[in-house]
Amino acid sequence: MFELDPHSSYMMPAHFGPRPLSPKASGWYRDVTSMVVPFITDAKKLSAYLPRQFSVAEEAVVTVTYACNRNIDWLAGHGYNLIAVSAAVDYAGEEDTLSGNYALVMWENLADPILTGRELQGIPKIYADIQDHSVIAGHWHSSASHFGNKILDIDVSDLREPSPEEIQAYADKTARGDHPLAWRYFPGISGFGHGVSEHTTFPSENILFEVQVGTGHVNWQQLIWEQNPTQFHIVNALAGLPVLEWLPAIVAKGSTNLIIPERLPRVIR
Amino acid sequence: MFELDPHSSYMMPAHFGPRPLSPKASGWYRDVTSMVVPFITDAKKLSAYLPRQFSVAEEAVVTVTYACNRNIDWLAGHGYNLIAVSAAVDYAGEEDTLSGNYALVMWENLADPILTGRELQGIPKIYADIQDHSVIAGHWHSSASHFGNKILDIDVSDLREPSPEEIQAYADKTARGDHPLAWRYFPGISGFGHGVSEHTTFPSENILFEVQVGTGHVNWQQLIWEQNPTQFHIVNALAGLPVLEWLPAIVAKGSTNLIIPERLPRVIR
Amino acid sequence: MFELDPHSSYMMPAHFGPRPLSPKASGWYRDVTSMVVPFITDAKKLSAYLPRQFSVAEEAVVTVTYACNRNIDWLAGHGYNLIAVSAAVDYAGEEDTLSGNYALVMWENLADPILTGRELQGIPKIYADIQDHSVIAGHWHSSASHFGNKILDIDVSDLREPSPEEIQAYADKTARGDHPLAWRYFPGISGFGHGVSEHTTFPSENILFEVQVGTGHVNWQQLIWEQNPTQFHIVNALAGLPVLEWLPAIVAKGSTNLIIPERLPRVIR
Amino acid sequence: MFELDPHSSYMMPAHFGPRPLSPKASGWYRDVTSMVVPFITDAKKLSAYLPRQFSVAEEAVVTVTYACNRNIDWLAGHGYNLIAVSAAVDYAGEEDTLSGNYALVMWENLADPILTGRELQGIPKIYADIQDHSVIAGHWHSSASHFGNKILDIDVSDLREPSPEEIQAYADKTARGDHPLAWRYFPGISGFGHGVSEHTTFPSENILFEVQVGTGHVNWQQLIWEQNPTQFHIVNALAGLPVLEWLPAIVAKGSTNLIIPERLPRVIR
Repeated sequence: MFELDPHSSYMMPAHFGPRPLSPKASGWYRDVTSMVVPFITDAKKLSAYLPRQFSVAEEAVVTVTYACNRNIDWLAGHGYNLIAVSAAVDYAGEEDTLSGNYALVMWENLADPILTGRELQGIPKIYADIQDHSVIAGHWHSSASHFGNKILDIDVSDLREPSPEEIQAYADKTARGDHPLAWRYFPGISGFGHGVSEHTTFPSENILFEVQVGTGHVNWQQLIWEQNPTQFHIVNALAGLPVLEWLPAIVAKGSTNLIIPERLPRVIR
Repeated sequence: MFELDPHSSYMMPAHFGPRPLSPKASGWYRDVTSMVVPFITDAKKLSAYLPRQFSVAEEAVVTVTYACNRNIDWLAGHGYNLIAVSAAVDYAGEEDTLSGNYALVMWENLADPILTGRELQGIPKIYADIQDHSVIAGHWHSSASHFGNKILDIDVSDLREPSPEEIQAYADKTARGDHPLAWRYFPGISGFGHGVSEHTTFPSENILFEVQVGTGHVNWQQLIWEQNPTQFHIVNALAGLPVLEWLPAIVAKGSTNLIIPERLPRVIR
Repeated sequence: MFELDPHSSYMMPAHFGPRPLSPKASGWYRDVTSMVVPFITDAKKLSAYLPRQFSVAEEAVVTVTYACNRNIDWLAGHGYNLIAVSAAVDYAGEEDTLSGNYALVMWENLADPILTGRELQGIPKIYADIQDHSVIAGHWHSSASHFGNKILDIDVSDLREPSPEEIQAYADKTARGDHPLAWRYFPGISGFGHGVSEHTTFPSENILFEVQVGTGHVNWQQLIWEQNPTQFHIVNALAGLPVLEWLPAIVAKGSTNLIIPERLPRVIR
Repeated sequence: MFELDPHSSYMMPAHFGPRPLSPKASGWYRDVTSMVVPFITDAKKLSAYLPRQFSVAEEAVVTVTYACNRNIDWLAGHGYNLIAVSAAVDYAGEEDTLSGNYALVMWENLADPILTGRELQGIPKIYADIQDHSVIAGHWHSSASHFGNKILDIDVSDLREPSPEEIQAYADKTARGDHPLAWRYFPGISGFGHGVSEHTTFPSENILFEVQVGTGHVNWQQLIWEQNPTQFHIVNALAGLPVLEWLPAIVAKGSTNLIIPERLPRVIR
């Protein structure tokens, strides 16, 4: 008979034992290349997608991030691509008050981190085919598709070195703390009611080797059920957020650590 | 502000609204081609993977099933492949007593049904690249791999029409009811403790157009963490189940319905 | 030292010996599901893409064909998808006079038949990601993409049984002979001049198990070099052919044989 | 009517016009990460795969190279992976006498460069699924598969800086010239006889940013027709070359230029 060890970490199928973690499996993503494209949107429209206790930050910034993750320790050195969309928010819970980026959706092109992200941190990860970024004549590009239908294109060009002010602003922001936020939700059996519904934060640590600043754009498709039956409502909601202003975009290379012992993912209240 | 409608069904990201189901999205998988390869194993070894309240059936049968699912209504007519491994078990709960096939693991090559299967029914689905079946000179074959490393090969050959006794045995078995069983488990935040842990059954309805009986084999690889860091322990556990006897294998074409209104997936106790 | 056997068939790399053909490797594609969508276009525009000795047939018909090929003997029972575009033409050579369908382009999602098709028959095959066809509520669909950018969508719906006249017309057409035509062209080293330039025909034999007639459409994208650097000019040329009338479309299941001993692919002059 | 422009470069389909080359489409592969694993083999066995006029070099070195090519100008900044196998040879033609590496086979995971490589330079390129390299705890790895069946694994570990002698030896070798060699072969129609058969060289220019030296290994599978019907004879031939000694392996990052105006690919005689 199989029994859970209360000191171990399990995911389905649990009956073959705890999640297998080699001594080599740290939290480090050692080779991360990213495009970060933020824009200001309409605060009222954005607020329609925020659950209770979350409110749009003073500046209604939505950030679309592409990352090409390689040399990931917990995946034995393999990698994957992601495209994440998050909103700058304030969280006012009964115990916790903090500001951060609320995960609206994260597409990834590998199921393993989709499952761990959903089940361990509550990040709303779903699948898409995500092109490795192309770079031609200084123009960076990637795109995501599902069932052969494009979801979005993301581009950054006109790259330049960041100014001292931009570097300082980034350092200030980092010093204020990094609070990625999410809503970890599992329904009851068969989809109705709920099994788990809680808000989470899952700090990470980023080291940047190279940063360039440029002009970014994101172009969303409008989709119907027949084209993307599991995600079209998500894509259309994001396509409907107006772009009031594109903020400076970033192309960066660095490393990311998802497991900081003193700041593990936790439930906020 | 976003609020859940208590009468709707949600999955992450929940804040964009309920799961989008078109009127066309029934539970029917209209075009299913499968290879079913059962074998008798060592009951004691198998029992090590069964949680409390489950016990190995009188005959310790493990069944490996490949299915090529096409024309799936809830996926707007798209499809995917799966390779499932289940064990014949008896379940003795406080309220429910039933016999069925306990889902040990199910590999699928599309993330959408992996997420719904895990989160709505508790089926321990994980990802693999699964080849469309090949058929050459009467020999049927498929295989699954992850990160470029083979997990298993599955083959059926020497096909013939089923005997009247075999058809009757199958009808009897179907009449006794179809009880797929699983353990729906979600950990607590960050992987420790648990958020949901319950046993489930999720009946389905099968219509077979063509059935042939033959000789089947499954060949498992032995893997190390470096080759398949998230699944090697599962593959090695299954590779370690001795094959005492191969039972007659089946190649079938038919349709499957996963949503039977009067028999929705439910928690068993 | 390696030497060619003049009685064998070679492809690069030739120095490992002739093309390996098992006794099981016949010319049969045993499981072929296809959508055939013909339309009438402007004869003058179409003629711009026909080399000398080819002229547009009395009716300027362009046919777009999707095929899901499975259980292919020469691929050991594996399969692939294709989307082909051909034009109804008359060929008036010095020795050969015949009517048939000239291969404008054929996208396939597997490199092996692309190489044999180009090098053995001169079919202008190139690569695309081609979705397995989806079928939802009587609507058939597929699409092709490359580098994440859609090339075309193909659809057939409103399916019905063919009329006796349609069956007779098809039989008549088949009796007149099947003359697929192509221009087998290999450049000189480094791309300039030419090594081979000849016209070919490559008869095949088709057995149909099921045929339905319906309404078809093809929707082409307009692309730029950055989106599909090797094929955008092809896609744009085809997108620029006006659709004067959609002819009845077909959805069919059958088998195809590419190797008819007495009618092997040959050069026409 | 379509006519070829004798000053342009064409590939099938030729009737849509010359190969489309943007002003951005130089010969540069701007981001190339490679593992180079050479070994000494049995000269007699190796010579069985060399056509007339080629002979095994003084040292019978076979080199297996994995390359992750990104930011490729002619592919609009996209990329692909390759695994190449070449042999150190001397070429003694009627006009040309030179030493270089003869291309035994090159697997690539994108059809576009397979077609240009075969048709423009005569490189014997064929398709495989090639994993992006993984790096875990200083161990580099990649592998290739086709139809779900592994072809080979390639690994490099124990990396260190190259010694001054190794750097000098590499510079000397480069100064003696870079002569990749191949046999450009196209059969006659239907596969018999030949349309083109000639030997070629196609110089390239390499800039290395980082070089490390380590211990490399290649592990070949033994395959049967049913597993890889178009390539098993190639894989088995290479698996049958004995490894007498592994030479120092290299992991490198750099850029490669395939179009050097004064040294274009040419036929050697």
